[in-house]
Amino acid sequence: MAEDFIVTPYQVSGDIDYDELVKRFGTKKIDSNLLKRISKHGEIHSMLRRQIVYSHRDLEWILNEYDKGNKFVLYTGRGPSGPVHLGHLMPWVFTKYLQDVFDVKLYFQMTDDEKFMFYDKLTMEDTKKWGYENALDVIAMGFKKGKTKIFLDTELIKTMYPIAIRAAKKINFSTVKAVFGFDNSNNIGSIFFTSMQSVPAFLESEFEGKNVPCLIPCGIDQDPHFRITRDIAEGLGYYKPALIHAKLMPSLGGSGKMSSSKADTTIWTTDSAKTIKKKIGDAFTGGAVSVEEQRKSGGDPDVCSVFQYDQYFFLPDDKALQELKHKCKTGAILCGECKQALADRVITFIEHHQERREKAKDSIEDFMLRD
Amino acid sequence: MAEDFIVTPYQVSGDIDYDELVKRFGTKKIDSNLLKRISKHGEIHSMLRRQIVYSHRDLEWILNEYDKGNKFVLYTGRGPSGPVHLGHLMPWVFTKYLQDVFDVKLYFQMTDDEKFMFYDKLTMEDTKKWGYENALDVIAMGFKKGKTKIFLDTELIKTMYPIAIRAAKKINFSTVKAVFGFDNSNNIGSIFFTSMQSVPAFLESEFEGKNVPCLIPCGIDQDPHFRITRDIAEGLGYYKPALIHAKLMPSLGGSGKMSSSKADTTIWTTDSAKTIKKKIGDAFTGGAVSVEEQRKSGGDPDVCSVFQYDQYFFLPDDKALQELKHKCKTGAILCGECKQALADRVITFIEHHQERREKAKDSIEDFMLRD
Repeated sequence: MAEDFIVTPYQVSGDIDYDELVKRFGTKKIDSNLLKRISKHGEIHSMLRRQIVYSHRDLEWILNEYDKGNKFVLYTGRGPSGPVHLGHLMPWVFTKYLQDVFDVKLYFQMTDDEKFMFYDKLTMEDTKKWGYENALDVIAMGFKKGKTKIFLDTELIKTMYPIAIRAAKKINFSTVKAVFGFDNSNNIGSIFFTSMQSVPAFLESEFEGKNVPCLIPCGIDQDPHFRITRDIAEGLGYYKPALIHAKLMPSLGGSGKMSSSKADTTIWTTDSAKTIKKKIGDAFTGGAVSVEEQRKSGGDPDVCSVFQYDQYFFLPDDKALQELKHKCKTGAILCGECKQALADRVITFIEHHQERREKAKDSIEDFMLRD
Repeated sequence: MAEDFIVTPYQVSGDIDYDELVKRFGTKKIDSNLLKRISKHGEIHSMLRRQIVYSHRDLEWILNEYDKGNKFVLYTGRGPSGPVHLGHLMPWVFTKYLQDVFDVKLYFQMTDDEKFMFYDKLTMEDTKKWGYENALDVIAMGFKKGKTKIFLDTELIKTMYPIAIRAAKKINFSTVKAVFGFDNSNNIGSIFFTSMQSVPAFLESEFEGKNVPCLIPCGIDQDPHFRITRDIAEGLGYYKPALIHAKLMPSLGGSGKMSSSKADTTIWTTDSAKTIKKKIGDAFTGGAVSVEEQRKSGGDPDVCSVFQYDQYFFLPDDKALQELKHKCKTGAILCGECKQALADRVITFIEHHQERREKAKDSIEDFMLRD
């Protein structure tokens, strides 16, 4: 039942049919023609090759403008409600790839206002604190100093509010009801918020005093916000932002996306090697009921969360991934070994990330944008 | 039919039954006991004596705190959508009286964001311009320099936004639907706005780092905003603001309130003597059908807009007002003479106001608050 899943910025449930989502949202799949165009600028990222980054809006236009010498800016962001996990990091890896390949600016929004208004238990102090904590994770990704501006909504509000209310004037409650599934019980801050999410798409144009194209790499669950942004952009005198959408990092539990609310099947950037090993050790796999059975008939990588992890993130080499798949299907590798190999890769990545995150504390002020 | 009128910040229609409004809104009438308490601090203002300022919320509490040495701050404001008329000025006259009698600070809010979001044709530049134009009218009233802070929402947003979203988190769409009559077609900025209108009630507490009582003098049509403010105040850790409500300045047309949308029956602070004379000359009165008839049976001051003007604003001397009333009722004065006398008073007031408004241009920076 393709209709049996829900994807909005505020709710993701059911098993997502990503092809169906493209139809539902009215986006386009990234085709070989687009990949070819991107390949002129740099190597095609494994997430593109594997259709993990798989959908877009107006990406041709962004490339056309770029080819004419009209550089775009990147805009992505994070709702700072707690520590960062691998599901958050995945689109940032891809964003960094885009920054490197196209040598462009990045606006990184921390929606501290949003998370405060949507989470009963979070205070403004909490979301501000997490904004700065999460900024360290962003910087640790290696984004370019001088070309990367990270900001908290509440700290750039003097610049953002006048743009936000121009956006808000063009969005009525019917629209946010339909797009986000809001109702009369939603607080009026949450209703207003999508206008704040639109603003960064227009920031460079405001700062430059002329229209600058904007490309938003994000999880496809965030697309509804930017459908609204695109609907109002031209009426405000800006270009519609283009989008490039990633699938959502799967949970280690075998169904659904990696989520902060499911701690045991989610790997945070602050997890220790021991914790990571335990979580991956407990992961849902496509293994057979017994070692004998698996040696005989093989496992099923298509349903295996460990294999998904390698595919999405940790084994970017296509040949290595194909070999692993083959070994699994033929019973040449058992789940324990496979988990161990993934755990080693994840631990290496996270330890490296933690080191860079620690160093980021020295340079955070070079990245923060305030008004 | 007492139910035949509507009073909200966004709609005033029908003939207002002010006693009924007190019941509908759940406010209290200002009684002789309260007047006696105010009289300890200064002369009772004609608007209080005549029950033009007639209703309140928690005024006893404000006076109790004041008597204990705990001074309140005043908060009032203006939606800067165009020039100021006498209907706007009336509560400011009363606000100045309160500032003088109690020697207290005033926060004066210019809701440039609100007017932009509620009026299709107004741009941000328009409402900002009117914010500064109207600030000159405020300063011309003679508010105390150093104790009066005037601000545009968009220019104090860094301070206001964090408080506004704390307020917004506690207000849902059901509430603004019920209180303001909003529906799905309202834009999401207008839905959010009431949280910005709450903020100035808490500003002094924020600046002082301790709770400071706040008294809001305003037209009773603005009470719905502050019902919401009062509902959420304690949950945010602040005192509920107290209110003191004025009736709405009547139109020169004989029914309804003075309104920017009815230019011919509204006197602006920028009107020339000639224009004022013409508008008052054309005003609806309680005069009889002919001079002979009026000399014989007298006029009806209770339905006369000229008499209302004297009563609300321009003849603060009770004895003079009673004499005028008597003369009218006995046919000793005709409408022409009465209009001429009012026009003289209004012209004197406006010319004096215009002079002070011109001088205000030199001191505006002493009054403006920005962050």
